[in-house]
Amino acid sequence: MIGLIRVLTTTNEEVLEQHGSMITSLYGVPVISKCIPDQPLGIFNEETEELAIPKIVALGQALEAEGCKLLIISCAADPAIKQLRANVSIPVIGAGSAASHMALSIGKKVGVMGITEDVPIAMKQLLGDLLVTSIRPEGVTNTTDLMTPAGRDKAIEAARSLMEQGTEVIVFACTGFSTISLADVLRKELNVLVIDAVEAQGLFASTFYKQLNSGQTVG
Amino acid sequence: MIGLIRVLTTTNEEVLEQHGSMITSLYGVPVISKCIPDQPLGIFNEETEELAIPKIVALGQALEAEGCKLLIISCAADPAIKQLRANVSIPVIGAGSAASHMALSIGKKVGVMGITEDVPIAMKQLLGDLLVTSIRPEGVTNTTDLMTPAGRDKAIEAARSLMEQGTEVIVFACTGFSTISLADVLRKELNVLVIDAVEAQGLFASTFYKQLNSGQTVG
Repeated sequence: MIGLIRVLTTTNEEVLEQHGSMITSLYGVPVISKCIPDQPLGIFNEETEELAIPKIVALGQALEAEGCKLLIISCAADPAIKQLRANVSIPVIGAGSAASHMALSIGKKVGVMGITEDVPIAMKQLLGDLLVTSIRPEGVTNTTDLMTPAGRDKAIEAARSLMEQGTEVIVFACTGFSTISLADVLRKELNVLVIDAVEAQGLFASTFYKQLNSGQTVG
Repeated sequence: MIGLIRVLTTTNEEVLEQHGSMITSLYGVPVISKCIPDQPLGIFNEETEELAIPKIVALGQALEAEGCKLLIISCAADPAIKQLRANVSIPVIGAGSAASHMALSIGKKVGVMGITEDVPIAMKQLLGDLLVTSIRPEGVTNTTDLMTPAGRDKAIEAARSLMEQGTEVIVFACTGFSTISLADVLRKELNVLVIDAVEAQGLFASTFYKQLNSGQTVG
């Protein structure tokens, strides 16, 4: 089993399972999703990130104790990744670093699309000179804003702007984009390479999980 | 079509196709393999690498002109990767950087196994502090040495030594290990995570190729 950590608090099973279901459906691996307590709004600034760190570590340790063979911190900011890696023996994958390593493997110029003004530090550091520009779709501060036809148009407009600034591959810095399948919309509308953070973490996680689970092939 | 560049000269079709066939069989994508001219011994020092660079660039440009949508430089030293990326418009993946990015995605301590004394510079730079140790199986200077029962035992012994020195994931710095399926041997014998350079480049290449070819899902 892969243990997936949602860094927000929810009692809605469907919301809880969104990323895990997508990974199971794309890569055929079992995922158990759990969320941290007492942060219904998730992580949205330094203070809430600090608050989440010990919760993410404790949840990861509990998932390892339950028998998970690999952990995913399903957030583009990779919160607590260093701390969790230091406190469990199994591999830990973060959405932000997974998406960044996908981009680095082809060396194409990166434009980051997110719902905050800044690119998460973890991604900025990894991408280095490959990061040419970043954008937040106009008027979009949360993913529900993107679920309307107007929001979808704003996202396409933002992607076009990234491409005009030299972007060769769009990397999402928000896992919320995955649940609305924005990557496929942009790929079809603009014929551009898109790295979706949930797809990327799932690709790495499933590859290593299959190896851990069977001792068979795959990267 | 994915264009795969072998950085040695061979007229043996089976040798030429080794890496491409493996990628097609693992990931279901079409690969055309071509080799550089006049270097039957491949790249084995700085001089032969310098000699190969313009040949790799010319071959990559020819493959792009033939309609390839993505290129692979199938060598752990990533020879000419920078130069080729600067001279074609399609994505270029190298075996060494692909294997390194796979390792970086889980943040586990890396031990590199190769057939030379040193870790290729491209891999060393990417892995940074994660690289804890490296080894060449005793008495092994080319991959045919590994194809005997004694060679296989030396490889297992080398892997064991890497693990005793703190290695959590073994990364191959030689694509020749792929053609003898050494990764599966080590996974089964030692229950250790192994990143095979041909599997890794194939994973990235197939993921992006599927996107370039259809505008559909995948990382």
